Amino acid sequence: MDLDRSPLARPFPELPTIEGMTLRTVRAGYKAWDRADLTLIELIQDTAVAGVFTRSACASSEVEMGREQLRQGKARALVVNAGNSNAFTGYRGREAVEQIVAQVVEALDCEREEVFVSSTGVIGVPLPRDIARAGVAAALQAPPCGWEDAAAAIGTTDTFTKGAGASAMVGETRVEFAGIVKGSGMIAPDMATMLGYVFTDARIAPELLQEMLSSANAATFSCITVDGDTSTSDTVLAFATGRADHPPIRSWDDAGADAVYAALLSVCRELAQLVVRDGEGARKFIAVSVSGAQSDDSARRVGLSIANSPLVKTAIAGGDANWGRVVMAVGKAGEPADRDRLSIGFGGVWAARDGQPLADYDEAPVSRHLQGEEITIEVDLGLGAGRATVWTCDLTHGYIAINADYRS
Amino acid sequence: MDLDRSPLARPFPELPTIEGMTLRTVRAGYKAWDRADLTLIELIQDTAVAGVFTRSACASSEVEMGREQLRQGKARALVVNAGNSNAFTGYRGREAVEQIVAQVVEALDCEREEVFVSSTGVIGVPLPRDIARAGVAAALQAPPCGWEDAAAAIGTTDTFTKGAGASAMVGETRVEFAGIVKGSGMIAPDMATMLGYVFTDARIAPELLQEMLSSANAATFSCITVDGDTSTSDTVLAFATGRADHPPIRSWDDAGADAVYAALLSVCRELAQLVVRDGEGARKFIAVSVSGAQSDDSARRVGLSIANSPLVKTAIAGGDANWGRVVMAVGKAGEPADRDRLSIGFGGVWAARDGQPLADYDEAPVSRHLQGEEITIEVDLGLGAGRATVWTCDLTHGYIAINADYRS
Repeated sequence: MDLDRSPLARPFPELPTIEGMTLRTVRAGYKAWDRADLTLIELIQDTAVAGVFTRSACASSEVEMGREQLRQGKARALVVNAGNSNAFTGYRGREAVEQIVAQVVEALDCEREEVFVSSTGVIGVPLPRDIARAGVAAALQAPPCGWEDAAAAIGTTDTFTKGAGASAMVGETRVEFAGIVKGSGMIAPDMATMLGYVFTDARIAPELLQEMLSSANAATFSCITVDGDTSTSDTVLAFATGRADHPPIRSWDDAGADAVYAALLSVCRELAQLVVRDGEGARKFIAVSVSGAQSDDSARRVGLSIANSPLVKTAIAGGDANWGRVVMAVGKAGEPADRDRLSIGFGGVWAARDGQPLADYDEAPVSRHLQGEEITIEVDLGLGAGRATVWTCDLTHGYIAINADYRS
Repeated sequence: MDLDRSPLARPFPELPTIEGMTLRTVRAGYKAWDRADLTLIELIQDTAVAGVFTRSACASSEVEMGREQLRQGKARALVVNAGNSNAFTGYRGREAVEQIVAQVVEALDCEREEVFVSSTGVIGVPLPRDIARAGVAAALQAPPCGWEDAAAAIGTTDTFTKGAGASAMVGETRVEFAGIVKGSGMIAPDMATMLGYVFTDARIAPELLQEMLSSANAATFSCITVDGDTSTSDTVLAFATGRADHPPIRSWDDAGADAVYAALLSVCRELAQLVVRDGEGARKFIAVSVSGAQSDDSARRVGLSIANSPLVKTAIAGGDANWGRVVMAVGKAGEPADRDRLSIGFGGVWAARDGQPLADYDEAPVSRHLQGEEITIEVDLGLGAGRATVWTCDLTHGYIAINADYRS
């Protein structure tokens, strides 16, 4: 099936070159398609790595191994297979990953723990080992490529390539960030997985990089949803080659730590939002801002309850300022809420305050706002200082068409 | 908007007369429609009552008052308003309910705690007190009606009337059960609420009735989902008029208690399944059976994770035996699960066992099963003895059309 480019797509940005890494892609042929589907990223010695993975109890072998490998905090290579997620394939799936790791270890003369593998695509079919072996061998010999080529090669049913960059000053030294991402929840028939990768030349200790990534992830990738369906393979990895010329950053108190975190956060936020912009059938980008919660975490859960509600998402698709459905979604979130303190608005205009519709509520500006492509929903719980913003897209006939009308 | 009758509809059954109660309906005119929309059910003195309500933190005044009234365990009347849920209407909503209660208390010379009120329909508009007053006055004078009339009058965007009956032997005495229900989650634009009512002439103490209803509810109404969107007004009430000629049943050890519970459970299960059969856009009825969980409750949560997954529901809509999506939904449920012990089947045929696709899996009988209207999904977690069955419907273009294409 051919998917139209999302109307919410963004052009691929100019991204900086990151010293100490090389991108390569080849067509391994995991599916019968005419495009690169294996990406090999070589990283200089002592590159720091951090990662966050799906919480699925049915995670793939790639995720399972990645978690173990992270304990070392060092990376020399990343291999991404597109077209087959290798999830739910038992010992055969694990063997396929081990084979790829062994092949790269031999070629780069590095350690087993330094080679990370991700796979995305159909669930339940072991990754074919012969295709993987030939693909990795070819990738090791392939010419370097640019960011957009790599962003395209890791995609499956993505309708546009997604990348984001940033920079930060550490003392007098400018450090660069570049990231790519694919997916939007469980995207299309039999396809799965959000994969995100951020690279920087900053010198940063793996333990601190992990703290920064976990924190940035909580405010970005963990705040997006397309359909509430968590993949078995979701992975975000951050790599720091350490080639920038500044004193190493080992703790939050070191010079430049805040600036580096801000840049990492900004790249993660942009990548996360790009995933939502490629949500299946998406026609509107929705930001749900929750304030007045008992904690930030509680605000995030209320926001996700709203963002995952099919009735809220279809109302936005229909341009309907149906704040009753937002009340419903707040009520079912399982978080502290008091009906009589709850306020709800769209596009900055309150429709209801303190548990009651506003007597002078003017729906006209709200209706105009809902005709646009960028929608905001504001919720104030009136209980505390906790706040969070969550991003999602609307639920349209396109979602049903992609997931029900075509056989996988 | 006119909704077509659900293809999964069932004819309204013959229901027994329950001694000690009278049904009446009138057109109050909560909406501009030509149908009865106010139901008044009068119950004989000392009728026992039990109830379960929505867990929404934004519950309506009706729900709030119902919870308080239940402590007495006695009922003389039930009033159901259709067309306006009176939810999220602050003190004005509460006043409207108080007014209805006071009016019935005066007419029947009973206590405030004995008059139960439910309302269903648009959220955020206070129930109009003048319309309610005239409606209740007319209902008090109206001629008695039958079960199907009452089932129709409590409905909103339901596409068919829903009822179920059962009987049980208490010693030599036959006791009768009749129940009616409306809704299917948050049904249609601005509409809300599942309301279910079960009536029996059995002599049963309110405390035991409450225990039985809570238990039956956990295995029936709490095991259905259409879109995962919990209403602000969900209510199930059970009334026992005590007119049957048998010794009172006060505990689970008393003669007839088990038979009465079995009949109550059967009525609740049938009513719950009828709600799913009227799910928005439903074309297929899906039973998800989970076994091998660490507890029954854990099995139910895994079942609901599958039944609420838009990717699973669209796969069934498309007749696609996409068991990878079931793996995903198990994995994200947040319940104990072990990928390598997980087995998944459709229509009684295993597609994957112990974490791997079956080598000799024959998709042909599964595809035939998925062409039908009654679908089963079997999941075995391989961990323990916990089991549960959950019921839902598929997710189709009809759902989007009903909720996004029409303005409320």
